[in-house]
Amino acid sequence: MSPAAATGYTNGSSTALNGLKKSNDRSNLVPFSSRLKEGRALAEDVWSIFNAANLPADCLNLGQGYMNFAPPTWVKEAAEEALNHVAPNHYSHPKGRMRLREAIRDVYGPQLGRNLDVESEILVTSGANEGQYSVFVAFLELGDEVIMFEPFFDQYLPSVTFNGGVPVFVPLHPDFSAEKPTSDDWKIDFDELERAISPRTKMIIVNTPHNPVGKVFTREELEKIAALAEKHNLLVMADEVYDFLVFDNKEHVRIATLPGMWDRTVTVGSAGKLFSATGWRIGWLIGPPSIIRPTLAATTRIVFCTNSPFQEAAAAGLEQVERRDFFAQQVREYDERRLALTAGFDKLGMKYSQPEGSYFVLLDVSNVTWPEDYPFPQSVRGRGRDFRACWFIAMEVGVSSIPVSEFYCEEHCSIGESYARFAFCKDVDTLRRAADRLQALKKYLK
Amino acid sequence: MSPAAATGYTNGSSTALNGLKKSNDRSNLVPFSSRLKEGRALAEDVWSIFNAANLPADCLNLGQGYMNFAPPTWVKEAAEEALNHVAPNHYSHPKGRMRLREAIRDVYGPQLGRNLDVESEILVTSGANEGQYSVFVAFLELGDEVIMFEPFFDQYLPSVTFNGGVPVFVPLHPDFSAEKPTSDDWKIDFDELERAISPRTKMIIVNTPHNPVGKVFTREELEKIAALAEKHNLLVMADEVYDFLVFDNKEHVRIATLPGMWDRTVTVGSAGKLFSATGWRIGWLIGPPSIIRPTLAATTRIVFCTNSPFQEAAAAGLEQVERRDFFAQQVREYDERRLALTAGFDKLGMKYSQPEGSYFVLLDVSNVTWPEDYPFPQSVRGRGRDFRACWFIAMEVGVSSIPVSEFYCEEHCSIGESYARFAFCKDVDTLRRAADRLQALKKYLK
Repeated sequence: MSPAAATGYTNGSSTALNGLKKSNDRSNLVPFSSRLKEGRALAEDVWSIFNAANLPADCLNLGQGYMNFAPPTWVKEAAEEALNHVAPNHYSHPKGRMRLREAIRDVYGPQLGRNLDVESEILVTSGANEGQYSVFVAFLELGDEVIMFEPFFDQYLPSVTFNGGVPVFVPLHPDFSAEKPTSDDWKIDFDELERAISPRTKMIIVNTPHNPVGKVFTREELEKIAALAEKHNLLVMADEVYDFLVFDNKEHVRIATLPGMWDRTVTVGSAGKLFSATGWRIGWLIGPPSIIRPTLAATTRIVFCTNSPFQEAAAAGLEQVERRDFFAQQVREYDERRLALTAGFDKLGMKYSQPEGSYFVLLDVSNVTWPEDYPFPQSVRGRGRDFRACWFIAMEVGVSSIPVSEFYCEEHCSIGESYARFAFCKDVDTLRRAADRLQALKKYLK
Repeated sequence: MSPAAATGYTNGSSTALNGLKKSNDRSNLVPFSSRLKEGRALAEDVWSIFNAANLPADCLNLGQGYMNFAPPTWVKEAAEEALNHVAPNHYSHPKGRMRLREAIRDVYGPQLGRNLDVESEILVTSGANEGQYSVFVAFLELGDEVIMFEPFFDQYLPSVTFNGGVPVFVPLHPDFSAEKPTSDDWKIDFDELERAISPRTKMIIVNTPHNPVGKVFTREELEKIAALAEKHNLLVMADEVYDFLVFDNKEHVRIATLPGMWDRTVTVGSAGKLFSATGWRIGWLIGPPSIIRPTLAATTRIVFCTNSPFQEAAAAGLEQVERRDFFAQQVREYDERRLALTAGFDKLGMKYSQPEGSYFVLLDVSNVTWPEDYPFPQSVRGRGRDFRACWFIAMEVGVSSIPVSEFYCEEHCSIGESYARFAFCKDVDTLRRAADRLQALKKYLK
């Protein structure tokens, strides 16, 4: 079934232009753009299928990657403070509020080993998502290819195709042969990567720490990617929204800091991830003027500017992270959350790749079985086996997760079919209860 | 000078692809997209030229259309309340928060004479601007033409070209022969309008109340536009962000309510305009499912969702407007502001078109003179005469405004050259001081 058919959009494209003259059906007078037929833009996506509304009311939601706890009080208070002044209730400069740009400079500059220029090297965006979309608007020509590693963050795909780009998929290859695999056991085949590069390749997206794998790309891996970017003159989109969520003393290497890479890299950051405020929609881009300026031209037209009060709050947050030792403390908290969940997997004897970064963990669900006549809904039939596994776990055990094959192209879908993504950006109590509930899977494991 | 040259972007497009191999200049390795060369996207725009930073420190800013006062306390308090709960700090549904969609249904449903379906006929966006951008993403094919009346809201132009569209300009024709012209003296030539329609015309933008003219399109005008939309099967973007700012008992007619027009119209609204919170970035679209669903697919990829706390605040605002008689009270306040400013124009004997809606007024500056050797900066030389008039007024009198020729295509630019746009979304005291200062123009009037 085509994406269009799946969502009842068939009329939109076929009858619309003629509909007015040929029939009395006025429900689709003007056809939507053909760009929506690409990139799964109209498909019923995994988020709709595994929406809380479709699952048992008491299901513990480890599917979606947002926190079930509030932002830190001292960050939230800065938002309230901003509301009590006139100016931060009104338009900000499209580049972002100066206070936030200065705070980003002060936190990220040392990380990147640069004195960042707040006028030309930093851009505040309406969430990291809109920032990335703006980069695609600013740089993609019709037919330009964009390389993304699988499993990929699902927004990349339509964001590229909407702007005339062609996604090119390179899978990370999992090796679960170790007794305790980690996210580092998802490997890049560099020959495969170079074969994926063509004269039309414009950009490569490097998401580290990686959603959903949790992989923290090693310096060696990033050096090899950098060499290819240099050789083939590629733009690098370094999606590092989980930059301050790295465990086990693993080193988060910013590809922009590798020799020569500053000139071709845009680094993406997110206040929502840093400060547990995914609904504030504050993100940022850092890069050379040659990337930031065209992207500013794009974002200015897309949103004009980003909401002002939460820019003030994000600024206040960044200003205080050092004195509060906030990032280190947050990693300790997430470490405890990670353990609360994975202890449940361990107890079950199920394999997962221990994530070295981000707040996601991939559980191998290939050995979960279910009755042959289990009443799966239409939405998960005909999809990867992981769709049924996740559905079954949510319905029978009361813990929701997300099937990972959604984050693969059709050709590579079978790699993802073995895994379910669990988000551990939830309070420890919820995660412990989820781990307890999951023990009921025992009798379904083969 | 081309827009590219004006902003120092020439290297970006010409040397980038070859730059890596041919020289050591690594400042532009990957070229930005050719779409940025269209629609003035890279030009130094009027907002940058007339930015407060370029003007005298004590200049009264009537240039930019944002308020110098705060949102109503009872709306702001709802934002603070939302911050104190966990969920409204996190992702909202891409359609918007249910509370806000219901509040929009309850306020706009009666206006549109419909029971609006919150699932398929209402879409919350990250400001009206992003909503409009999303409609262009969802509906424009390469080469599709979009008709806009001049003077046009300047974001339309690049938003259309970024998505492959071709803007087609139809001027409103001012007639200032009356002693006291009004915004209704800006007229559409309907023959000219129909001549502008081609087989490639996909959409017409109808902005009423109109920025910057203040014109409230009459029922008769809208009926004629509707007939053309019907005859040529056009989508209508009804940009009605100033919908509740209509003076002198003028009737605001929503084109979506005219016979047959619901099926082809998307109506655009803005919480920033309604509640004096332009920095909150909350807007909405209302229309039939055939328009809202594809636009949802677009906005979901562009921003994923809109910030959550200000959706709650906007909902609380809309829920209370009736019992507080808020809109009527706000019109009375703006009426006083309008008078505070225009009394100054009257005292000077300068002509302006009395705006029947919005918070802008166009002053005829064609009789303002200046010394021949006046030291104008490069940025306003070689532009319309209005650029120099606005610059001169800002520097000599200390009141900033915006030259209106910016909102015209080159061909029609001479119509706009006579006018300066003053925003009266400022407190009465500021407007009175501006009116007083403007009296200093007397000696420069011919």
